[in-house]
Amino acid sequence: MKSTEFRGIISYPVTPFDLHDGSVDVPTLNRLIDRLVDSGSHGIAPLGSTGESAYLSDDEWDTVAEASVRRVAKRLPVIVGISDLTTRNAVRRAKFAESVGADAVMVLPVSYWKLNEAEIFRHYATIAEAISVPIMVYNNPATSGIDMQPELIVKLAREIDNVTMIKESTGDIQRMHRIAQLSDGRVPFFNGSNPLALGAFAAGAAGWCTAAPNLVPQWPVKLYEACEKGDMELARAVFYRLLPFLQCIMKGGLPTTVKAGLALRGFSVGAPRRPLQPLAEPAVRELAAVLGGLEGG
Amino acid sequence: MKSTEFRGIISYPVTPFDLHDGSVDVPTLNRLIDRLVDSGSHGIAPLGSTGESAYLSDDEWDTVAEASVRRVAKRLPVIVGISDLTTRNAVRRAKFAESVGADAVMVLPVSYWKLNEAEIFRHYATIAEAISVPIMVYNNPATSGIDMQPELIVKLAREIDNVTMIKESTGDIQRMHRIAQLSDGRVPFFNGSNPLALGAFAAGAAGWCTAAPNLVPQWPVKLYEACEKGDMELARAVFYRLLPFLQCIMKGGLPTTVKAGLALRGFSVGAPRRPLQPLAEPAVRELAAVLGGLEGG
Amino acid sequence: MKSTEFRGIISYPVTPFDLHDGSVDVPTLNRLIDRLVDSGSHGIAPLGSTGESAYLSDDEWDTVAEASVRRVAKRLPVIVGISDLTTRNAVRRAKFAESVGADAVMVLPVSYWKLNEAEIFRHYATIAEAISVPIMVYNNPATSGIDMQPELIVKLAREIDNVTMIKESTGDIQRMHRIAQLSDGRVPFFNGSNPLALGAFAAGAAGWCTAAPNLVPQWPVKLYEACEKGDMELARAVFYRLLPFLQCIMKGGLPTTVKAGLALRGFSVGAPRRPLQPLAEPAVRELAAVLGGLEGG
Amino acid sequence: MKSTEFRGIISYPVTPFDLHDGSVDVPTLNRLIDRLVDSGSHGIAPLGSTGESAYLSDDEWDTVAEASVRRVAKRLPVIVGISDLTTRNAVRRAKFAESVGADAVMVLPVSYWKLNEAEIFRHYATIAEAISVPIMVYNNPATSGIDMQPELIVKLAREIDNVTMIKESTGDIQRMHRIAQLSDGRVPFFNGSNPLALGAFAAGAAGWCTAAPNLVPQWPVKLYEACEKGDMELARAVFYRLLPFLQCIMKGGLPTTVKAGLALRGFSVGAPRRPLQPLAEPAVRELAAVLGGLEGG
Repeated sequence: MKSTEFRGIISYPVTPFDLHDGSVDVPTLNRLIDRLVDSGSHGIAPLGSTGESAYLSDDEWDTVAEASVRRVAKRLPVIVGISDLTTRNAVRRAKFAESVGADAVMVLPVSYWKLNEAEIFRHYATIAEAISVPIMVYNNPATSGIDMQPELIVKLAREIDNVTMIKESTGDIQRMHRIAQLSDGRVPFFNGSNPLALGAFAAGAAGWCTAAPNLVPQWPVKLYEACEKGDMELARAVFYRLLPFLQCIMKGGLPTTVKAGLALRGFSVGAPRRPLQPLAEPAVRELAAVLGGLEGG
Repeated sequence: MKSTEFRGIISYPVTPFDLHDGSVDVPTLNRLIDRLVDSGSHGIAPLGSTGESAYLSDDEWDTVAEASVRRVAKRLPVIVGISDLTTRNAVRRAKFAESVGADAVMVLPVSYWKLNEAEIFRHYATIAEAISVPIMVYNNPATSGIDMQPELIVKLAREIDNVTMIKESTGDIQRMHRIAQLSDGRVPFFNGSNPLALGAFAAGAAGWCTAAPNLVPQWPVKLYEACEKGDMELARAVFYRLLPFLQCIMKGGLPTTVKAGLALRGFSVGAPRRPLQPLAEPAVRELAAVLGGLEGG
Repeated sequence: MKSTEFRGIISYPVTPFDLHDGSVDVPTLNRLIDRLVDSGSHGIAPLGSTGESAYLSDDEWDTVAEASVRRVAKRLPVIVGISDLTTRNAVRRAKFAESVGADAVMVLPVSYWKLNEAEIFRHYATIAEAISVPIMVYNNPATSGIDMQPELIVKLAREIDNVTMIKESTGDIQRMHRIAQLSDGRVPFFNGSNPLALGAFAAGAAGWCTAAPNLVPQWPVKLYEACEKGDMELARAVFYRLLPFLQCIMKGGLPTTVKAGLALRGFSVGAPRRPLQPLAEPAVRELAAVLGGLEGG
Repeated sequence: MKSTEFRGIISYPVTPFDLHDGSVDVPTLNRLIDRLVDSGSHGIAPLGSTGESAYLSDDEWDTVAEASVRRVAKRLPVIVGISDLTTRNAVRRAKFAESVGADAVMVLPVSYWKLNEAEIFRHYATIAEAISVPIMVYNNPATSGIDMQPELIVKLAREIDNVTMIKESTGDIQRMHRIAQLSDGRVPFFNGSNPLALGAFAAGAAGWCTAAPNLVPQWPVKLYEACEKGDMELARAVFYRLLPFLQCIMKGGLPTTVKAGLALRGFSVGAPRRPLQPLAEPAVRELAAVLGGLEGG
């Protein structure tokens, strides 16, 4: 496959849990994936931050990885988040993802102890050697506790063969500029910070990795298409219309808020896993209002 | 006048100092202003950060304000930076600027002690009551030590009649989004963070306040025009071409680097005022290389 | 037991791994624990940050918990770190620790998604309900990604019966002051930031939780005893003598540096678990020099 | 004189302004200085941050400098804050302070544009060459916008003859440790962060520069004396008693809160200079309560 197959709106499904016993609910996951595929997403990314990957047991993780790839069934490219605290288990997950047919894997250097650059490089290199599908380097210090500078990210892409894509989620547009400069524009970068979507496309992002399509699938696609056509006035209008929603899901936490929003839509996916709690009632009302503001769009 | 007269590229002239005695060099300032006016800027902003306003005595400040307005001679709108640590002297400067014909004044809440919101509001209100020309609220915590949130900035614009424009220089695009949201898009905002120029225009900025035209006047204008036409591909190409230069003048400090660049161009404006030192030799060479990369653009 | 039994120098053993297969090396752990008990520590805290708890499988974690408590054999009080990303597994670990005889458990609210205060409170309350031994609340945003303010920490201590101790590791002495104020000095707080050891004792800390005794057991004890006697001049002399070592183990990361130091001492405990890498050679030499500086102390 | 004459509690008088016209009120300043001298301070530091030096005209500054030194009349050592944005005016002030009899000057590298290390060094060296009294290097990034690392501060003390004292106001105890280490304990350092007073003395600070004596002169002296005697239990008791007051004057801003507190004491010194506003009523009540808590101490 070519890395350029990933482009546009890459959607993160949440991981549904059974209302009663909290186990992974595969049938509902399948229905959610179908909705994402049918409503215009350009790629599917299970087991990302939104998918509560960090809160799953290994068995659960394997179940979601396999079910997701199988359900997409080549309708769209699938990139599976394989991050884990230990290199050993990250390798295991990467191999598993490849074995069940993932088109690519996404790797965030999760930490407990801060990692130095040599440790991060070795972590990526070890994973890369174990698989042959492409790797998307993912930087998100707010969740991972590790902030990879553009210099390190581009070094990973230059020196490790199957590192072919970058996802930047700091929310700092200068990071994307630096990545474009340091890679001479040759490594596609994706935006992972929802409220930066417009700026990132203006800066040349290849795509936007987002949980928004779980609830409002048509809007991110509209934004992407307006940017692709170079219609900045339309892009701006779409973006500002969408922005309160993006701010709302950021504020409440993605899995928490998206799960609450799906319930509002009558599509129950259970609660987020504890210690995460369901969205509090005032925030649910705020979310409902924001979603209402996007009706008829 | 209408605030909407300010739009596009608002250029900051540096303040030239005599090579021998360090006094303000008005004839050179006049020539510099002519260059800025003739090369396509849409507005002139003397006595901003770039103009080393903070390092001038009151007499010097008055001299530069008066000379600048006179030299522009209504060819373009002029906005004069009147910031001062005390409200009393800020008022004095604002009145002076108005008396010599400034079209607007720009106010940064310079601090020694942090100001609370009531103190900032009163500072702006007191200045506003003393003059009748429009005020541009300027937020730049990196130099002023005070970070005004979008909520406060928009409150100033809503509640003080002649506060009609906003300049945001944090470099965080979310601030501009918030200003647009909170003001329902009705208060024009200007970008003051050079490397944010592309993202800011994408987000709907009315203009870009910048020292770049002192050295490369055609490039900011090209970027603005591409954005105005909605040609994002061209805008992106221009921006990435210009970006190393913008990063360079940020890194070395605006007055320091711009003055070194003007010397490289054969247009001597003297040194920045101490404690600022002239740009060190390695940085001068880097600047020369970056300027060379923009030749023939 | 009474919570006040914990006081003084609480030592964190590292978790030794087999050189060949990387498995947990219990015999070496036993020898290390004996050294810590014999050399004057006042408490033992297995499975903390230093113990690489975050990198162990559940089976390994259980093995270390049980072996540690058994080996200490009531010679000193033992507090077991039971932190985990999910509440469910944190509860499981807490119950396991109690069942094997731990005198108390230490709980850090590890996060992937940031937790709000209600989520943190529920996490602690759920763990507390499941056990009857005391809980030490542990705040260490640098590793956990969650920063609990003193107000929240003291609320946990006030409202949850068996939360009886606090460990503060931000390195900000003001946090300890606030805890002392908010709890009227009635909840003992422990310092977990090595270079803050002197200031923390001055501020009234009940103890110092530290990995330093793995390598230089007599020095922390000396500092504690000088502070207990109120001999600030001696305390200061001991502290400044010890400080380069404390800075060194902080810089290189605790498990990484302590394991390198034990190897220098001829006590091999294997490498830290990947992605952590063994301490690089220049840092090993620096550590050796710093350890040399403490000889004959 | 010897720099070691400065030690203990160095008190900052506020600068009283006339209630009617806002001019500097020298008679009240004289009375305030007498109170400070008479109530046990070990040194007087006019024209610091608390003295609103940044808000004075040059004429006013000269007036306060001269009046202060004259009034202290060698009863205690006097250190005058001579900070200014330009090197030229800082030199002028330093020479003036020396000419009127100051025992030392205190220099904060106030900035508008950030200064690099060479610029900071040159600023200090230029001032030092112009005078022969000792210089106290003052680091306070919260007000000055420039954060000098311990390495730079100690380099100033090593390489510039009359730089003989350091005042550290970041509130980070590690900075003091580093200064002590880098200077082999040979350059006396003073604490300028009120709530760090206990930790700083524990770390070996030579003194505490503080505005607290304007309102509660006996308490800082008690703390210092307890620390000098090595009675840490008493020191801790005094410190925690005093702490709410220190937190209160930090929260409201030193000149603002101290002036409000002097009014509560029946000693009117006028309002702080605008844009600073008098302390708001709820904060005044809080201050009154906190002061009440220190009665009878």
